[in-house]
Amino acid sequence: MSKQLVFGHQNPDTDAIVAAMAYSYLQNQLGADTEAVALGTPNDETKYVLDYFKAQAPRVVTTVANEVKEVILVDHNEAQQSVADRKDVQVVAVVDHHRIANFETTNPLYYRAEPVGCTSTIITKLFHENNVAIPQQLAGLMLSAIISDTLLLKSPTTTTDDETAVKELAKIANVDANQYGLDELRAGTNVDSKSAAE
Amino acid sequence: MSKQLVFGHQNPDTDAIVAAMAYSYLQNQLGADTEAVALGTPNDETKYVLDYFKAQAPRVVTTVANEVKEVILVDHNEAQQSVADRKDVQVVAVVDHHRIANFETTNPLYYRAEPVGCTSTIITKLFHENNVAIPQQLAGLMLSAIISDTLLLKSPTTTTDDETAVKELAKIANVDANQYGLDELRAGTNVDSKSAAE
Ligand SMILES: [Mn+2]
Ligand SMILES: [Mn+2]
Ligand SMILES: [Mn+2]
Ligand SMILES: [Mn+2]
Repeated sequence: MSKQLVFGHQNPDTDAIVAAMAYSYLQNQLGADTEAVALGTPNDETKYVLDYFKAQAPRVVTTVANEVKEVILVDHNEAQQSVADRKDVQVVAVVDHHRIANFETTNPLYYRAEPVGCTSTIITKLFHENNVAIPQQLAGLMLSAIISDTLLLKSPTTTTDDETAVKELAKIANVDANQYGLDELRAGTNVDSKSAAE
Repeated sequence: MSKQLVFGHQNPDTDAIVAAMAYSYLQNQLGADTEAVALGTPNDETKYVLDYFKAQAPRVVTTVANEVKEVILVDHNEAQQSVADRKDVQVVAVVDHHRIANFETTNPLYYRAEPVGCTSTIITKLFHENNVAIPQQLAGLMLSAIISDTLLLKSPTTTTDDETAVKELAKIANVDANQYGLDELRAGTNVDSKSAAE
């Protein structure tokens, strides 16, 4: 199998960055050759998350056909939210929690969407289905993505699957989800730098 | 939850009919209120299958918005292969093994596609993921769908998942997959009635 790039949407949020890292890790554990990349640099919240769990931001790309023939999309499917040259590569898999629109393929593919609060919640289930253990650092990142997308399980999109995943990931990551979650969301609003400017 | 109809494509083949019956059964076991219907009458092969396993053909519908607000698609996703009034209902789930095209939703949904030989292979995995036992009659029908779509595991679309499902379903159904499969495919070519006419 030739190398595949895995990436989330443009103007990436924490889920777009983390879901790519998590799904790439899972696929590589299962024998694939994938690399998580991003269509933009991390925002303030994501920087806080990566720093907290001592993880590196994925490499930023603006095109993919110059590198690979096949790609995997996470946290999005609509063409206008994706990489500029998507029509020049084959989408072989999608893991997402959004509506489907402006998306079509010429070949059968793996497509996994669920109406839950976060892509990282679905990927948590995929680790279990494939009997792959979630490493501590990755659990912290995936926890952060769910906290971000569901506003600490308070958004109307939150489901019991998200709640279950948050409990499990917080345990593996060894953090207090509520305390850490408030700090993470605060980092996203960037209170300090705003206060300084105001 | 209000009632949902589950159906395969127009001019249904064995997988389109059986996958609707199987997914409806699974969803009802999980607490949903669904009914399997069909967008056409069974072909000769499917008639043989239903007769062999003493199952009734699903009710035929030509429109759905007069009955329900929500539907589930199996074995297809493209609008032109689906029910005439699909735009008037919400698609809440899709289980399919074809390319995605001419499909879009306004809301997040459950979408499960895998590049395997048959929808009934995916549904076999969904029974396991949800810890629901497959009844003997349904196992026979799902086995028949995989035999039909993969031409007894000989088509180029056949995967190891299809092979695994056939072994398991044949055991539950208590039939010899090869012997039964040849009889089923022969019923589809309708040799007898053709011989009579020729
Ligand atoms: Mn996102
Ligand atoms: Mn998301
Ligand atoms: Mn079919
Ligand atoms: Mn099929």
